[in-house]
Amino acid sequence: MINEILNHRSIRKYKPDAVSKEILDEILLAGSRASTTGNMQVYSMIVTTNPTIKERLWETHFKQDMVKTAPVHITFCADFNRFTTWCRQRKAEPGYDNYLSFFTGAIDALLASQNVCLEAEAHGLGICYLGTATYNADKIIDILNLPHGVVPVAAIVMGYPEAMPELTERLPMESVVHYETYRDFTPEIINAIYKEREASVQTLELLKTNNTETLAQIFTDKRYTKKDNEYFSEKYLDVIRKQGFLPGD
Amino acid sequence: MINEILNHRSIRKYKPDAVSKEILDEILLAGSRASTTGNMQVYSMIVTTNPTIKERLWETHFKQDMVKTAPVHITFCADFNRFTTWCRQRKAEPGYDNYLSFFTGAIDALLASQNVCLEAEAHGLGICYLGTATYNADKIIDILNLPHGVVPVAAIVMGYPEAMPELTERLPMESVVHYETYRDFTPEIINAIYKEREASVQTLELLKTNNTETLAQIFTDKRYTKKDNEYFSEKYLDVIRKQGFLPGD
Repeated sequence: MINEILNHRSIRKYKPDAVSKEILDEILLAGSRASTTGNMQVYSMIVTTNPTIKERLWETHFKQDMVKTAPVHITFCADFNRFTTWCRQRKAEPGYDNYLSFFTGAIDALLASQNVCLEAEAHGLGICYLGTATYNADKIIDILNLPHGVVPVAAIVMGYPEAMPELTERLPMESVVHYETYRDFTPEIINAIYKEREASVQTLELLKTNNTETLAQIFTDKRYTKKDNEYFSEKYLDVIRKQGFLPGD
Repeated sequence: MINEILNHRSIRKYKPDAVSKEILDEILLAGSRASTTGNMQVYSMIVTTNPTIKERLWETHFKQDMVKTAPVHITFCADFNRFTTWCRQRKAEPGYDNYLSFFTGAIDALLASQNVCLEAEAHGLGICYLGTATYNADKIIDILNLPHGVVPVAAIVMGYPEAMPELTERLPMESVVHYETYRDFTPEIINAIYKEREASVQTLELLKTNNTETLAQIFTDKRYTKKDNEYFSEKYLDVIRKQGFLPGD
């Protein structure tokens, strides 16, 4: 197996060491080699290392320490701005102000991001995805001056790891793999799939700390609540609309 | 640089040779090691090799030959079905019937897909993404029996390449990389970025074949037209709604 894939773990503590331009260039080049719809390259990567701008990004990313301490922050965006500008300059009438185009750009951006992460790891760097990129996409647009046609879909921090945590446990493969068609989950299969995780020392500690009866309740009541999800859904759909990919703006 | 990243090309012609279970297992395992939001693993990978089912998928993917000839077809889905089922079985009230959750699942699925592709290439296999996965997601849902909470976001074909095409040219890095904040594109920058591609032999041939004045017009008038984009946008948003991630169903 590709070493970087097998050994990936999210890094949340970083050394202050900068990433050299030479290495960063290779990492970004790796991003650009990912598959892209029709070779349109309708995505962009905004590389931020300036501490003042990173501090503003840190605020939007729920003030997670690593956004300040990691030397590099990259925002991946669905981006039809460059492509549309090119079309207009070439007597071509672009028709990309719609949801499908946004999603096409999002696919491009996310495939590029995964190449970037693996290539970074091949150079001894660590990365961590920031789920908050979609939550506060409106503020990221302000901070990074993203024009119409550009929507943040993911962000990562990158730098030299302070330490290497253990690999994260994943559910058994049958949780995510289906053969030929989808096999739905019976209560027995659900029990079998979650058995090991629910019995782990980490889970028992989590239940104690959070004072909940089940692990699932930690997700529904603490980490990813209906209220937050609905709030950030509205906000993100607004951003997609304002940047020109949904009707009504 | 990671070899598989540097040498990636989309493969559209395949040998009939099957992919062994052992190799396929490693490839799928690679998918499962990708970053996933809160370690929820809210995605699924449906692996189809059965010729009858592949023939039905081929129809939805605009009858592209490779869907029939490649031995393996994988559909990547945003999937909150398993997670939600687990929550309900554990006295936890899931709040994932919203757009943010769909997009979270889509990110998970797309990062996994890129790991799958790179790991496949490490085993001498070739892959090609099928942009049509979002176009006809409704039909894919029928064919693969995808339950509520599951939305296809990408699909690939996979197999041993019949031949290795040349690497695809990409635009210069400044087309997709921005430093610190977004630098918008002046007409001069657009001209500089597209100069080489527009002057290439391939472009000149394309202009002749398509009888158009500019390369951009081939995209706007032939390949990715406003009419098609709007039609498939409506359809895809309907799918996202019907699968439970947008209000109104």
